Formats: sequence, C-alpha cells, structure tokens
Amino acid sequence: MDRYPSSLLEKAVSEFAKLPGIGRKTALRLVLFMLKRSDSEVDAFSDAISHVKKDIKYCKICHNISDTDICPICADGHRDGQVVCVVENIQDVMAIENTQQFHGLYHVLGGVISPMDGIGPNELEIESLVSRVAEGNIKEVILALSSTMEGDTTSFYISRKLASFNVRMSVIARGISVGNELEYTDEVTLGRSILNRTPLQK
Amino acid sequence: MDRYPSSLLEKAVSEFAKLPGIGRKTALRLVLFMLKRSDSEVDAFSDAISHVKKDIKYCKICHNISDTDICPICADGHRDGQVVCVVENIQDVMAIENTQQFHGLYHVLGGVISPMDGIGPNELEIESLVSRVAEGNIKEVILALSSTMEGDTTSFYISRKLASFNVRMSVIARGISVGNELEYTDEVTLGRSILNRTPLQK
Ligand SMILES: [Zn+2]
Ligand SMILES: [Zn+2]
Repeated sequence: MDRYPSSLLEKAVSEFAKLPGIGRKTALRLVLFMLKRSDSEVDAFSDAISHVKKDIKYCKICHNISDTDICPICADGHRDGQVVCVVENIQDVMAIENTQQFHGLYHVLGGVISPMDGIGPNELEIESLVSRVAEGNIKEVILALSSTMEGDTTSFYISRKLASFNVRMSVIARGISVGNELEYTDEVTLGRSILNRTPLQK
Repeated sequence: MDRYPSSLLEKAVSEFAKLPGIGRKTALRLVLFMLKRSDSEVDAFSDAISHVKKDIKYCKICHNISDTDICPICADGHRDGQVVCVVENIQDVMAIENTQQFHGLYHVLGGVISPMDGIGPNELEIESLVSRVAEGNIKEVILALSSTMEGDTTSFYISRKLASFNVRMSVIARGISVGNELEYTDEVTLGRSILNRTPLQK
C-alpha cells in the first residue's frame, strides 16, 4: 500500500482510480497534473463534468444522449425515418455516423442481453423499440449489434419481438470480425457492413 | 472528427482529453461512465479535485506535497534530520518510502534541469536546498535522481553548489538501469541502491 504524504492527495487519487482503466499510479499522475494547472482550468474541468451530469438528456425517441428532448439526428428532417438502426450504445451511433453510409434513425438499447452481468431485456430499451415499430411508420429495422454471443442473443430476442409486425428486418453484414466489438471496427468495414446488410429470416 | 450528439458531452470529453495519456476515445468512455454514476458519486469526484487543488500545501522544508505547512515526514521526530535525500518529484518520495530503507528527510526539486523543456536551476528548489545545507545541521546529502542525462546534469549542478559546505555527498548506487526513470524501478532494486549509495568526489 502506498503512503501518501497528504490525505487530500490520497482522496483525489482514490476518486480518479475509481474510473475504468485508471490504476492508482496513473491516478496519481493525473492528480499531480491537475495541481500544476491554473485554478480556472481545474474549474473548467469540474464544471464540464457536473454540467454534463446534471443537464444531459436522453432522446425521447432513440435514447441517444442529447442536449435536448429530441436528439439532432431524430430532429433532422432530411434523414429517413422509415429505417431504424438498433445499436448497443452511444459510441456505436458515433462510429456509424462517422462512416457517412447511414441516413436513417437510431435506437440505442443501452447494452445487450447478458445474463452473466444480470442484464435482461427489461434493463434495455427494447419495449420502446417495439412501441416505435408498432406506430407503423418504420419500414426496416437494421440490427447493428456486436458480433458476440450477447449481441447475437439480443438480435434474436428483438427479431422475435418484432416478428408479428409488418417490418423488414436485417442484420449488418458480417464484415465485422466475429468476436470483435462493433465500436473497434474500422470505418470502411463498418460502412460496408451496413450497405451489405442481409435480410433476416422470420 | 467525431460528431458528438451533445455539446455538453463534447465539452466534458474535451476536458478529459486534456489529461496526459487520455485520448478522445478513452475520454468518451470516462464521461459515459460518469453519467452512469450517482449524483453523489460525481459530486465526490468533483469535490476531491477542487479540494486538493484549493487546499493542498507544499512542505516549507522539503517541498513535498502536504496537508500542513510541514509535511508528516519532516515533522516526524524519529527520522534522521542529518541525512537529506534529494529527489525529482513526489512520486519518487513515495517510491523510496515504499522500500522502507530510508529514514532521513527529503528535498523535492520539482523536476530536473532540462534545457530542452526550458527548465533551468531557477525553476527548481535548488536554492532552498543550499539554504538547508547552509544551516549546518545536515551531514549527508543523497542525490537520488533518475539515471538520465537530465538527472546526471542536475546531480552535477547540485554537487557543485554544495561543494563549499562541510557535508558528505553521495549518489544512489547504479542499481537502477541506465536510462530508466527512478519511479519505475522495482522496490528491491531501489532499496538496495540506497543502501549501496557511493560517496561523491568533490
Ligand atoms: Zn434521437
Ligand atoms: Zn517536508
């Protein structure tokens, strides 16, 4: 156990070390970096965090992060509201947007079904997806989940839930390497996998 | 350039990405982690940072970080005030303390002489070291700087500055691999290098 010369320092290090992927040695370096910054720089850092925590919203339609009740993508009249791409998280929305190959809307599940982690369908935005489809304006649902067992399970579960609706369903092409997280797929492969999406058997 | 669905999110990501070693992808992950935490957890994080920034002190004797004007090491009457170990930074104090091989006091320079980075002797706590030695109570100064060109230059500079005083000088043994930062040296090697310190030629 490290002995810190200051309890204030130790407290700040402990807080940084709670962040994912940040060990105590890295945390100490980050805190000492903070100490070298100006008061206004440190305030800007703290303010940005409390601001995003307090004022962030989740889009009422697609559950993407947003500054407003409806996110800029859902609010964009130039996009195709008849096609909805189902993704696990916000990073995946950003990854697909970066490909510039998709011009429909999204639905952010907030995770994938994972019994090991105690995440069942009710922890995810699946019922709200069913409601969106039930409204009748959506012609196609693209399942763009990671090519993992959890992703496949979730795709299967959703395809069953939507089977009774008159909606075309597809999964993005397996251009993404099996076992890889979608988020880490390069843009070209990811863009192509959306263009080459395959219809799903009901 | 990534398109963020929220300006609040983008601002927070930008602030995290200013930290050393944190890229934008990692920063996004950290901010999204923050969003999943409770309000009180996020407050505890922010409070710890502003608290350490506002209330931290530097020891008036050794310039180590401290909650008080005199740090716990300098205030500890059981330690040998006649031996002072000169180090680059706070991490080095903690690394040496972890070896439990050193029972004297420290002097934290706040860096090493590095003309490339615009750091000269006046940017470091060298004059205050000379003043400490000039008081006459110190019998030995151990130079425990990294085994790099900058560390060697700084050791040489300090040894010249202290040459006229009646004080024994030593450098820690080159158990630490040449070219390596002291901070990353394992505890056993580091402890041994202190025990085997070699007297310095005046
Ligand atoms: Zn939306
Ligand atoms: Zn001190």
